[in-house]
Amino acid sequence: MEFHRRGTSTCVFQEMPVLVSAAAVVGPREGEGPLGDLFDMVYSTTLLGETSWEKAESKMLRQAVDLALAKAGLEESQIDFIIAGDLLNQIISSAYMAREYDIPFLGIYGACATMSEGIGLGAFLIAGRFARYVVAASSSHHDAAERQFRYPTEFGHQRPPTGQWTATAAGAVVLGAQGKGPRVEAVTIGRVQDFGISEPNDMGSAMAPGFADTVWRHFQDMARQPEDYDLVISGDLGNIGSMIARELLRRKGIAIDDRHQDAGVMLYHPSPEVGAGGSGCGCVACVFSGKLWKELYNKQYGRILLVATGALHSPTSCQQGETIPCVAHAVSIVSG
Amino acid sequence: MEFHRRGTSTCVFQEMPVLVSAAAVVGPREGEGPLGDLFDMVYSTTLLGETSWEKAESKMLRQAVDLALAKAGLEESQIDFIIAGDLLNQIISSAYMAREYDIPFLGIYGACATMSEGIGLGAFLIAGRFARYVVAASSSHHDAAERQFRYPTEFGHQRPPTGQWTATAAGAVVLGAQGKGPRVEAVTIGRVQDFGISEPNDMGSAMAPGFADTVWRHFQDMARQPEDYDLVISGDLGNIGSMIARELLRRKGIAIDDRHQDAGVMLYHPSPEVGAGGSGCGCVACVFSGKLWKELYNKQYGRILLVATGALHSPTSCQQGETIPCVAHAVSIVSG
Repeated sequence: MEFHRRGTSTCVFQEMPVLVSAAAVVGPREGEGPLGDLFDMVYSTTLLGETSWEKAESKMLRQAVDLALAKAGLEESQIDFIIAGDLLNQIISSAYMAREYDIPFLGIYGACATMSEGIGLGAFLIAGRFARYVVAASSSHHDAAERQFRYPTEFGHQRPPTGQWTATAAGAVVLGAQGKGPRVEAVTIGRVQDFGISEPNDMGSAMAPGFADTVWRHFQDMARQPEDYDLVISGDLGNIGSMIARELLRRKGIAIDDRHQDAGVMLYHPSPEVGAGGSGCGCVACVFSGKLWKELYNKQYGRILLVATGALHSPTSCQQGETIPCVAHAVSIVSG
Repeated sequence: MEFHRRGTSTCVFQEMPVLVSAAAVVGPREGEGPLGDLFDMVYSTTLLGETSWEKAESKMLRQAVDLALAKAGLEESQIDFIIAGDLLNQIISSAYMAREYDIPFLGIYGACATMSEGIGLGAFLIAGRFARYVVAASSSHHDAAERQFRYPTEFGHQRPPTGQWTATAAGAVVLGAQGKGPRVEAVTIGRVQDFGISEPNDMGSAMAPGFADTVWRHFQDMARQPEDYDLVISGDLGNIGSMIARELLRRKGIAIDDRHQDAGVMLYHPSPEVGAGGSGCGCVACVFSGKLWKELYNKQYGRILLVATGALHSPTSCQQGETIPCVAHAVSIVSG
């Protein structure tokens, strides 16, 4: 029996699932950032006309899914699975989004690594011939996350420079067994890493080892070098986590510096509020769906490695003195 | 291109993944229940020697995984993926469990439907030849859930008879591409259903439509009758949800009454505290791993339909006046 595996951790696809469409919906701050023009919808307030930030997040996610379906020219009835996750307790943004569709729903949680977990699972389902089309989607909402994870949002607490700004953003992609678009070549699902960081205002440092381990494994498994990728994109280590991650990889003989970018750093203009960069499930989801998908579609890149990174703690685990475990999942995508 | 699908929602496996082992670890109340003798470990306190209920839950889940691996005679290094989820915010029980293993981790959230989501995904990964062995695991902890979802646990608030008791329990299974044991024949991933119930003390009623929809679709897709299954097991509708679910199916011409059982009803002796029955991700996980797996292994059943049901709300969504969306995933398992 032959398995579609290489090395210790990587699955490769002989028939590569196609990312047939992508859509991104963001809030006002994200719309004013360097990538603002690339998003499909930019809201002028973070309430999106809803009565709560939580309802707003779910609406944003639904609109990203609607737009991705419309761009792909597909009806709801043609989609075999919808895979989604977010940061809110019990992933309610995703559940209330999925309630609006008559599509089998797989809920996932990977914190900021959710988007690559979803694309990875979607690719497995298609390459395994269990689905013709799958939607993978993820979101986060600054104001909803702030009051759930930190302080009342209106309080506007001061952050240290290592802190990251949870993005108000959603991204959705449609994966298909055939069609035109970038293709998923390989997936490396990460192992949980914990280097003992316990400071929730420094998640980039906590996530760096997860990123480094997954990227290292991916290169080992595929017998490749950084030069084989036009871009290695993390999501979201921020400035400080990125520096640590590059150094960890250098120590293993892998220099990604000249081709590494971080979705959290790309999303915003630098400011004391934003701190080390953006974060949240929606951050890398909107950067991939709004910018990178198009660049792959237009063949500006030949091959990229998308590595979303997640901090798997909760306020309760922090209060109980636990350190922050992290995970990163890598998806190798080729243009087309 | 041929897809392994039947009807609108069901995936069928030509080479059926094998459930090579299963293990269940429970707390004291579960150990005193009707199934007490069937569990691999029964703890005498709900702290399990830890300093918090949350840490206790993660330990219980880890022990279920350890026991499932030991029973299968497998080393950690032979497992390609570990799939897990639980009820705690940001699924910390699962993340802290996964930190202890050097195994690629996929975090999922499906509330009490988590165990069948995990077994389903594990079956996809194996039947698609992306893995040789996969662990699927899930847990819940009464005291940890109580203070997160309801009131301080020590308060011991009174429940209405429709209320359910979150089980302190964990279950884990190992799925393999080959070996001896019950086999996964087909998986029906559910669609999110919401019939407008907003009472979190009546989750059985909220979940009944999700169960009925998935069971109905499974029977339609497979062109089968209830008589084709020796047992249809829900997890966890409780007494009241079960009555509603059976009635909903009867209206569609499907009578499962003489072969339906509910994991939540099976786990405890009736009492006012337990109310309508057990619930929580760990409930159906321990009933399947402790009891049903063995009965399938011993060929007491020829074929069962395992249908875990999840209520996808959160305290925040309830406070905001939202109704409770639900999902159920069905896994058809044949003896062996």
